[in-house]
Amino acid sequence: MRTQVGIVGCGPAGLFLAHRLHRAGIEAVILESRSRAEVEGTIRAGVLEHWLVEMMTEMGLGARMLREGHFHTGITLQWNRQRLHLDMEELTGGRKVTVYPQHEVLRDLIAARLADGGTIHFGVSGTAIHDVETDRPFLTWHDGEGLERRLDCDYVVGADGFHGPGRQAIPAARRTEYQKVYPFGWLGILAHAPLSWPELIYANQGEGFALLSTRSPEVQRMYIQCDPADGIARWPDARIWAELRARLETDDGWVLREGEIFQKGIIPLRSFVCEPMQHGRLFLAGDAAHIVPPTGAKGLNLAVADAVVLSRALAERYRDNSAARLDAYSDTCLRRVWKGERFSWAMTTMLHRNAQDSPFERRIHLAGLDLLRSSRAAATALAESYVGLPPED
Amino acid sequence: MRTQVGIVGCGPAGLFLAHRLHRAGIEAVILESRSRAEVEGTIRAGVLEHWLVEMMTEMGLGARMLREGHFHTGITLQWNRQRLHLDMEELTGGRKVTVYPQHEVLRDLIAARLADGGTIHFGVSGTAIHDVETDRPFLTWHDGEGLERRLDCDYVVGADGFHGPGRQAIPAARRTEYQKVYPFGWLGILAHAPLSWPELIYANQGEGFALLSTRSPEVQRMYIQCDPADGIARWPDARIWAELRARLETDDGWVLREGEIFQKGIIPLRSFVCEPMQHGRLFLAGDAAHIVPPTGAKGLNLAVADAVVLSRALAERYRDNSAARLDAYSDTCLRRVWKGERFSWAMTTMLHRNAQDSPFERRIHLAGLDLLRSSRAAATALAESYVGLPPED
Repeated sequence: MRTQVGIVGCGPAGLFLAHRLHRAGIEAVILESRSRAEVEGTIRAGVLEHWLVEMMTEMGLGARMLREGHFHTGITLQWNRQRLHLDMEELTGGRKVTVYPQHEVLRDLIAARLADGGTIHFGVSGTAIHDVETDRPFLTWHDGEGLERRLDCDYVVGADGFHGPGRQAIPAARRTEYQKVYPFGWLGILAHAPLSWPELIYANQGEGFALLSTRSPEVQRMYIQCDPADGIARWPDARIWAELRARLETDDGWVLREGEIFQKGIIPLRSFVCEPMQHGRLFLAGDAAHIVPPTGAKGLNLAVADAVVLSRALAERYRDNSAARLDAYSDTCLRRVWKGERFSWAMTTMLHRNAQDSPFERRIHLAGLDLLRSSRAAATALAESYVGLPPED
Repeated sequence: MRTQVGIVGCGPAGLFLAHRLHRAGIEAVILESRSRAEVEGTIRAGVLEHWLVEMMTEMGLGARMLREGHFHTGITLQWNRQRLHLDMEELTGGRKVTVYPQHEVLRDLIAARLADGGTIHFGVSGTAIHDVETDRPFLTWHDGEGLERRLDCDYVVGADGFHGPGRQAIPAARRTEYQKVYPFGWLGILAHAPLSWPELIYANQGEGFALLSTRSPEVQRMYIQCDPADGIARWPDARIWAELRARLETDDGWVLREGEIFQKGIIPLRSFVCEPMQHGRLFLAGDAAHIVPPTGAKGLNLAVADAVVLSRALAERYRDNSAARLDAYSDTCLRRVWKGERFSWAMTTMLHRNAQDSPFERRIHLAGLDLLRSSRAAATALAESYVGLPPED
């Protein structure tokens, strides 16, 4: 088999890339180790930046999102039992964020890709990346029947997440990895409960962080900071509700509306960047190259931005026979990535209670929140980063 | 002896307070352990916020400052061998900072205070604060001849710096101290050299922080980050110039203009806050209650802001017999103090190379600088904090 661009990974980066290449007349094939059902069923967050919502709509991929997504014109921050509404739309001159879960985005993009005649191989195993330092890279894997398959391509894209083979295909001596592992994780729940508040609440109160979010009028998504080493058994429902109440309650009698918890899980928080994001004919995109803690809701958006930059570069390569953008791919992406990393780190630092912080540093983080109340410029800087800017050229 | 307000310490907080009380018809006496010559000769930084320059002018204390000060409409930041000019005046709607050394401010205020008939006892020793929990507090000390003196007063102000007796007069069980000691210090020099750049440069490059500042067209003030445990002997002039060149050089051929170094010294960097800033009839102001690292140039400004808040509160107390503002003194000041602490910490963190930081954190600090280049809101937030806002009521 042969294609122009071989993409490892059927997540946001790989799917958006395949769609954009298709529209530029470039052929791509996606390999994915999970089944389609697994990809479409893995629950992740889903805060979409303003430009991404516009781009999906322009690409004809936004119909269900526009119908079912929640449009947020602002967020609420909470500390010291008080709330602060940040009107993102007003602060950024009309931009807003959309809450539409990542797996719903993936469902829409997979269906549209298959309808366009695109190829996605689900459930492959043993994917290996070969000869990216030559002009003839190729991918090998075993298909569902255990048969060895091979795909020759012009370019290989590692959009295969933090644990995939993509990043490892850059020799260790040719890459630098930057990492920070936070001493806390997020316990996330889904509950059958009515809406408690009209927008997202990011709180740092009592024992630390809590996030009140929503999935639908009947299903609510909430997170609380916890020890990442905790087993889920340490968090019976009663403890979860008690902690959520303590971190979200205010002095004005607001009441958290509770219900049956039907899903819970703990994730660790990590910041990670791999430099460079390219090597020979291999290009990394999304979590393969960079991880952010979920506090800034930047993971999905950074992944799609990589796909946008890469699709432009590949289009220029095939259309004009110029590799200038392709050569600059990593530098172009990393400028945005480090801003996203900084924002995610700053939000995480400001909104969590870190046992390694001194009492002085805890007060500094609260002073950072206080500043948002008194400084329109500080609030605007946060809002700009939160709603995001389109990927630069 | 008896007065209305007994002030320990003849620094910016004590002197501005005495001047403002005098204008409100309230009598105050200042005690100072150093001689007048020592107070007027101790070199400190001197970046005055916009409101402070206006206030000095309105109070008739600004004539020499307006004549001899340097007015800065912007600052330059530098990293990765490139510079960024932040136009403070344009970003903040016309506010600017004035560089006028602190000891010159003190000279002007001491002369004016004595000309107004005010009392300042210089060179006292063994100052002790008594009975601040009663309605009849008093101060005792030994004068220049070793005679014991006593001053009865209505209120006592501890404007006596970090090491003075003021803060200790609040029982340890009644105060909380927040502190951060940074693992680096500043080596400061004065040199006979011409001006190298038209405004202050704050750099984080090579081995870390450097600050290019000026005292006059012929005398330049410069600082570099160093090990706070270094003896000055470890820093011969040649090493100082080499480090300054490395941290300030750019790719466009700019040249640091050197000259004879005639003063050098090393200071440690510390953040510190004492809460509350009052106890009974004792009020703390300035460094007695809070220290900032010099990176944000906030120390003097926070001290004077305390004096402004306290003079308003005392004026209301004597004029209207209302203690409402006086009771709220600590809370009012601490709102501003923590914002100043946060800004100073953020500037210090972003502009220094901290051996305790991971490579990830170093990149995050540089990304914070990059953000100032791309986000007007982020640049505005920094500029607002740098030029300062008048003390709130």
